[in-house]
Amino acid sequence: MAESPVTKRKREEKEGEDGAADSHEAPSFPLREVSVRRVLRESAREKAIFLHGQVKNASGDGTDAVVILEKMPFQEENVAELLQKYTKLQLQMSNDIYSTYHLLLPPELNEIKTTVVYPATEKHLQKYLRQEVYLIHETGEDYKNITLPFIQSQSFSIQWVYNILEKKAEADRIIYENPDPANGFVLVPDFKWNQKQLDDLYLIAICHCRGIKSLRDLTAEHLPLLRNILKEGTEAIVKRFGMAGPQLRIYLHYQPSYYHLHVHFTALSYDAPGCSVERAHLLSDVIENLELNPKYYQQRTLTFALRADEPLLKKFQEADRV
Amino acid sequence: MAESPVTKRKREEKEGEDGAADSHEAPSFPLREVSVRRVLRESAREKAIFLHGQVKNASGDGTDAVVILEKMPFQEENVAELLQKYTKLQLQMSNDIYSTYHLLLPPELNEIKTTVVYPATEKHLQKYLRQEVYLIHETGEDYKNITLPFIQSQSFSIQWVYNILEKKAEADRIIYENPDPANGFVLVPDFKWNQKQLDDLYLIAICHCRGIKSLRDLTAEHLPLLRNILKEGTEAIVKRFGMAGPQLRIYLHYQPSYYHLHVHFTALSYDAPGCSVERAHLLSDVIENLELNPKYYQQRTLTFALRADEPLLKKFQEADRV
Repeated sequence: MAESPVTKRKREEKEGEDGAADSHEAPSFPLREVSVRRVLRESAREKAIFLHGQVKNASGDGTDAVVILEKMPFQEENVAELLQKYTKLQLQMSNDIYSTYHLLLPPELNEIKTTVVYPATEKHLQKYLRQEVYLIHETGEDYKNITLPFIQSQSFSIQWVYNILEKKAEADRIIYENPDPANGFVLVPDFKWNQKQLDDLYLIAICHCRGIKSLRDLTAEHLPLLRNILKEGTEAIVKRFGMAGPQLRIYLHYQPSYYHLHVHFTALSYDAPGCSVERAHLLSDVIENLELNPKYYQQRTLTFALRADEPLLKKFQEADRV
Repeated sequence: MAESPVTKRKREEKEGEDGAADSHEAPSFPLREVSVRRVLRESAREKAIFLHGQVKNASGDGTDAVVILEKMPFQEENVAELLQKYTKLQLQMSNDIYSTYHLLLPPELNEIKTTVVYPATEKHLQKYLRQEVYLIHETGEDYKNITLPFIQSQSFSIQWVYNILEKKAEADRIIYENPDPANGFVLVPDFKWNQKQLDDLYLIAICHCRGIKSLRDLTAEHLPLLRNILKEGTEAIVKRFGMAGPQLRIYLHYQPSYYHLHVHFTALSYDAPGCSVERAHLLSDVIENLELNPKYYQQRTLTFALRADEPLLKKFQEADRV
């Protein structure tokens, strides 16, 4: 069997000489050998940066990597420690009762989350590259003529979703389940949430029923499922995490990032990515819309943003619909 | 003249013994002497935390302080240095081409911005205290019985809006005007936008017609006004700033921050404050809703968030509607 790039990479790491790694640590990506080609994107607000890097191999060729650096949120439980254990406090500005400082902390109290995609293809680089975005007003006809054929042509894999539903993966992460095949769902924490603080609480309800691709497929027949998700999902989060129901933002994405119906639960006080008006649809609104008009989501214009590199944008451009 | 607490604090610092400060540095706030009373607020997304601290003085009494810690954005120019000079890289998770690590950096490459308000009054503490937020589902009846009487009882002043419309203020800031008294409007840059870069473009269209308090007052008779704002507002921004029309997010707030109808124009790529699904309503959706049902905004449930300290929340609580 041919050795996959991943197995190869892992072995190379084991043989590597990453001086930073302790001997008892798992082998690490040779970060020091990465040369930065360009900044793909950065977010000053979120203190994150996305890099296109290259690792030179023995023959001198470079292999592309995406390296994402992101500062970590403060943790309530160790903040007193931070104030005790800083190594330096440098005054920057002082005015009346207000002053600002540069504070230096011991490295272990100030970790950086690092995510590596390696080896990375051009597609990975494009995914993280900052792109112009354009608003699409998709009519029901546009969906049938442009979006649906596009989705069907892509055959995105959602095996990982089925793995969760069948308990083949992440079974220990399930917070709540209604096992009904038609109107049931599984509630799991989103990967973006580390479950350490409630401030950025983020869970996903994934419906058991297969074949509901998105909001566009919803009709009045899905009302029992949607009401279950709203009621039982909220109750499970209230019970497990002690939030009050009205402190939750419960919504669907359109377009979703994968075409198997799922609902987002985030802390209302958390300015979660993807909760802006051009992508999020409150579940309570969706239910009310379907109660008033069973065909609402087949008929209405739905508005969403597409990045310049997304193939679906090209389809809308070709149809002269942007 | 009595010595102010600030002068006094400064002298105490000079005499103090904050071991972290270099001898040639300006005197620093005695951060190590701060005991953390509570976390006022934190933002996991922005990597910031707001603390209520106390500094004990010689007599053993505590003086309140607000201490704000915020991680700094990455800087494009020194990111290559980060990848070279890390002190430790610890593998967290590895799956196929994806892996995540904890990266530890030398303290001077990973500063924390620290802001201190000291001495702090109860008002300062309240200012930074996290308020719980609650989602309100306001029916048409709720609006008539709770929200409208509340708005009328408040008599918010919107003289500053009239000043703009009458050219008594900000006349030089007007980007575009349609002077029609019924269906016209004035387009001005929002104060949050400095007009120096398009990334955070933010303009406001304010209608000339008085008495339209919010979305709730809109009916089919306002369609000409709304269509003018959508069409002419977009054209004016395209012409002046060179954005493409589909790169704009055009929406109303509900609840608005002042009760004279206005429409927000922001760069779609800008994650503008107040564009989340529980506050923003796309103008294109508003127009379509009114075309389908002239009484849509008098009848529909509208969802919005209220902070615990907002008087309107109390009204909804008294009516048992939260």
